[in-house]
Amino acid sequence: MSVSLQVVVPFAAERPKTRLGGVLSAAERRAFADAMLTDVLAAVETAGHEPTVLTTAALDRSVSQIVDERPLGTAVDAVVTDATPTHDRPLAVVMADLALATPTAIRRLTEPSGQTGERLDGQPGERPTDDPADLVFAPGLGGGTNAIVVRDPRFRTDYHGASITDHRQVATELNATTREVDSRRLATDIDTPSDLAELLLHGEGAAHDWLVDAGFELDTADGRVGVTRE
Amino acid sequence: MSVSLQVVVPFAAERPKTRLGGVLSAAERRAFADAMLTDVLAAVETAGHEPTVLTTAALDRSVSQIVDERPLGTAVDAVVTDATPTHDRPLAVVMADLALATPTAIRRLTEPSGQTGERLDGQPGERPTDDPADLVFAPGLGGGTNAIVVRDPRFRTDYHGASITDHRQVATELNATTREVDSRRLATDIDTPSDLAELLLHGEGAAHDWLVDAGFELDTADGRVGVTRE
Repeated sequence: MSVSLQVVVPFAAERPKTRLGGVLSAAERRAFADAMLTDVLAAVETAGHEPTVLTTAALDRSVSQIVDERPLGTAVDAVVTDATPTHDRPLAVVMADLALATPTAIRRLTEPSGQTGERLDGQPGERPTDDPADLVFAPGLGGGTNAIVVRDPRFRTDYHGASITDHRQVATELNATTREVDSRRLATDIDTPSDLAELLLHGEGAAHDWLVDAGFELDTADGRVGVTRE
Repeated sequence: MSVSLQVVVPFAAERPKTRLGGVLSAAERRAFADAMLTDVLAAVETAGHEPTVLTTAALDRSVSQIVDERPLGTAVDAVVTDATPTHDRPLAVVMADLALATPTAIRRLTEPSGQTGERLDGQPGERPTDDPADLVFAPGLGGGTNAIVVRDPRFRTDYHGASITDHRQVATELNATTREVDSRRLATDIDTPSDLAELLLHGEGAAHDWLVDAGFELDTADGRVGVTRE
């Protein structure tokens, strides 16, 4: 079953990826973030969805754009309010730094609940029905919420702290049905130098290639996997 | 489709989880590792498979056991050699510290390739056939290989360094078909203090409860998610 939905990809255009400041210059961080955005948009499009970049500044890129300089949560909530997402007209929010995202991983956001999702209540033997959930979350490593599918117009984001915990609480308060997507690829947002190793290990797109061209390679010298730069 | 397979769970009985030495005493690390093993075995059993613990010392636990004091790779390879796994008689190796593993996640190891797996070649539009792959890998964060399904008796492990890279290479050399399972739950082995946050955020079994009883809680004070202990 193929489900098409509008996918909003928030993007910090001007000072992206500050936590990579120790290994990449400001100009490099912009180029790297741009390559990751390219990968995410390609995955979304190949999965059959329409991406819109929600950006803090207009991009020189042929993609639907909404420019909003406000903080992430405020800008996303404005889009949700405007879109009034329902089961007939779902809206997704997918982070721009999911450089491991593949079309297959993106498709799992809209798969019938019974196929690959997990129930929040963790009941193993009882597969849920095929009705899509009101809210679908793809948790990020470290407590983030890296992708959300919204089919309830009342939903509002809460990206502070351990946002997955907050979003579960929002869902409970709304009495909304939920599903979580168990994906390493969607869980791995590329934020820190150690995340770069994941991209070298598993990436295959523009961001992976940018990193290789910039001289990064895997370093397993001390028994843990990290990166070095030529 | 339900596929039953023998699941081997390697376990370091005597000095487990040394990298948690900064936050847990030796006795606590043994108790915590034991709780994680309980969770993994429960997930495997609920998924309909038969677990065997491949342990460095006999355990006081009613589960099938193979005692082998040799290093992980040597001991696992001996089991593979003995079992001669084929498509009719697959063998899985699942790490004992996957405390986030659920029956649903374990089931994904044996799902038909087309359903939720990813092809190693990353071709997005072309779903693979429903033939099970000769080798199925669930990559771990940091380059590990947290679970393997073996249907080729020639396969040998290589757990040193970035083992997922080595295992892909082994598969290529054997000309074996492969599939990778994209699961955050199977990717998260609990090794370091920061991994404990993942367990507090997403766990629901014995290890999660042990951690809570030991006084650990989430700490989001500095903007990153970590743990503190009372």
